[in-house]
Amino acid sequence: MEIGIVGLGLIGGSLGLDLCDRGHTVLGISRSPDTCTQAVLRGAVHQASSDMALLAEAAVIFICTPLGVMPQTVAALIPHLSQDTILTDVGSVKTFVVKAIEPLWPHFVGGHPMSGTEFTGIQAAQRQLFVGNPYVLTPTAATSSRSLEQVRSLVYELGSQLYVCTPEQHDRAVAWISHLPTMISATLIQACLSEPDPETRALAQSLASSGFRDTSRVGGGNPQLGRMMAQFNQAEVLRSLYRYRDQLHSTISALEASQWSELETQFQHNQAERPRFLKEKPRDG
Amino acid sequence: MEIGIVGLGLIGGSLGLDLCDRGHTVLGISRSPDTCTQAVLRGAVHQASSDMALLAEAAVIFICTPLGVMPQTVAALIPHLSQDTILTDVGSVKTFVVKAIEPLWPHFVGGHPMSGTEFTGIQAAQRQLFVGNPYVLTPTAATSSRSLEQVRSLVYELGSQLYVCTPEQHDRAVAWISHLPTMISATLIQACLSEPDPETRALAQSLASSGFRDTSRVGGGNPQLGRMMAQFNQAEVLRSLYRYRDQLHSTISALEASQWSELETQFQHNQAERPRFLKEKPRDG
Repeated sequence: MEIGIVGLGLIGGSLGLDLCDRGHTVLGISRSPDTCTQAVLRGAVHQASSDMALLAEAAVIFICTPLGVMPQTVAALIPHLSQDTILTDVGSVKTFVVKAIEPLWPHFVGGHPMSGTEFTGIQAAQRQLFVGNPYVLTPTAATSSRSLEQVRSLVYELGSQLYVCTPEQHDRAVAWISHLPTMISATLIQACLSEPDPETRALAQSLASSGFRDTSRVGGGNPQLGRMMAQFNQAEVLRSLYRYRDQLHSTISALEASQWSELETQFQHNQAERPRFLKEKPRDG
Repeated sequence: MEIGIVGLGLIGGSLGLDLCDRGHTVLGISRSPDTCTQAVLRGAVHQASSDMALLAEAAVIFICTPLGVMPQTVAALIPHLSQDTILTDVGSVKTFVVKAIEPLWPHFVGGHPMSGTEFTGIQAAQRQLFVGNPYVLTPTAATSSRSLEQVRSLVYELGSQLYVCTPEQHDRAVAWISHLPTMISATLIQACLSEPDPETRALAQSLASSGFRDTSRVGGGNPQLGRMMAQFNQAEVLRSLYRYRDQLHSTISALEASQWSELETQFQHNQAERPRFLKEKPRDG
């Protein structure tokens, strides 16, 4: 099958590597001539160009540009497409993307491969990035079964675990387990930096260890990504933050009231329930 | 030197292994005859007993029982001690311990080896657990230089990085980088479990990945440890939680007001500052 990839970063490049390995003809688009050259050299695409006309015959095209520019990317792409081409995207927020792209093109399926590393760019692309990790597809009433089946079969070829839900269900779920952790982890770093005494702050920095490291990791990560989660999933991130704030007030009240056994019972519950969020999950993603 | 260890768990046992290796005579106390047998078999102590009279000739004794029972442990030990014996403890909160033990015995130095694993008990004891990790000593005006020097030299023998500060400075610093992360991480698990729709909760559990795993790790850990941090460092943990709550309100306000570039600037600041808390830190601790 002839497959197009627009945006040759970590996700676009990794998709290309695996789809080439599966025997597809992969055509890549990047604004940067250097990235085009690199993508071909790395074997992530068979051909690459800055000219979207390269994708005139593609059966399926993955939109892998940053979330905020996806609608513009699709608008620029449309004049070059044959009328049956199926589009899908890899954005980490779905309602915004689906609402923006669906009116532009009849054959579109929103998607979110939940794989990643801390690195970005075509240099970071790797084979088998998606194996065993969740890949969410978010069809709507407007999605044809042909489009869904086509993208679904490619997801299976990547070795991902497929989940199908609405864009809204996706955004609410990822707010809990991805966007909220990022916000509260960022807030932890800010709180530690708010310590007014420089000596205490320096001692805290010296003594910090794996507990601080793990809890602050996602909040100290890519600033553009953090901003995009908040901006494009604003309502759901706020909803999770409000519930988090309520729970924080409960935690504070328990400490103020010296309710030690209630607190320990709560911690026991947390310890018992946390594995439900971790079952058979690989390290990346 | 003849060294006593009261409480032969992960920390007590690991101290024993290293101090035996350094050529000291190590005598262990545990209430459990099984633990005594195991500690001797593992080479963590030369002799072990449930009878504190074993420590009559010890020059230095490490108190390694749980935080809440340390004062009782010392009270029970005192009738057996020779008058020059130096006591030190390994508790993760210092003001409470120092205030309770200092009036009981003139030769006492509070201590906190910041090493640990997720496991507990003598089976989990390991050599070199303290190498390269912070070891905090918290002398007061009442601490003799003889006591401090003696414990300090043993900390150097363990290969730890020594920090010396007041009990209050210690408790304020560890509230930031250990106790606060535990509380906000626990609160994350509680917030996710508060999602009222079971289908959304199930989807969130399926999609959760490394971001959730790392941010929830310390909050889903040992419930007794979480309770003890809160109970014995109550004032400092509350102080850090109040500042965290203020920062959380700022984060929420920024989202409510759609202040995306301000948010991104804050995330850039977090990303730039976080490494100060991580510099040259080993994985454990």
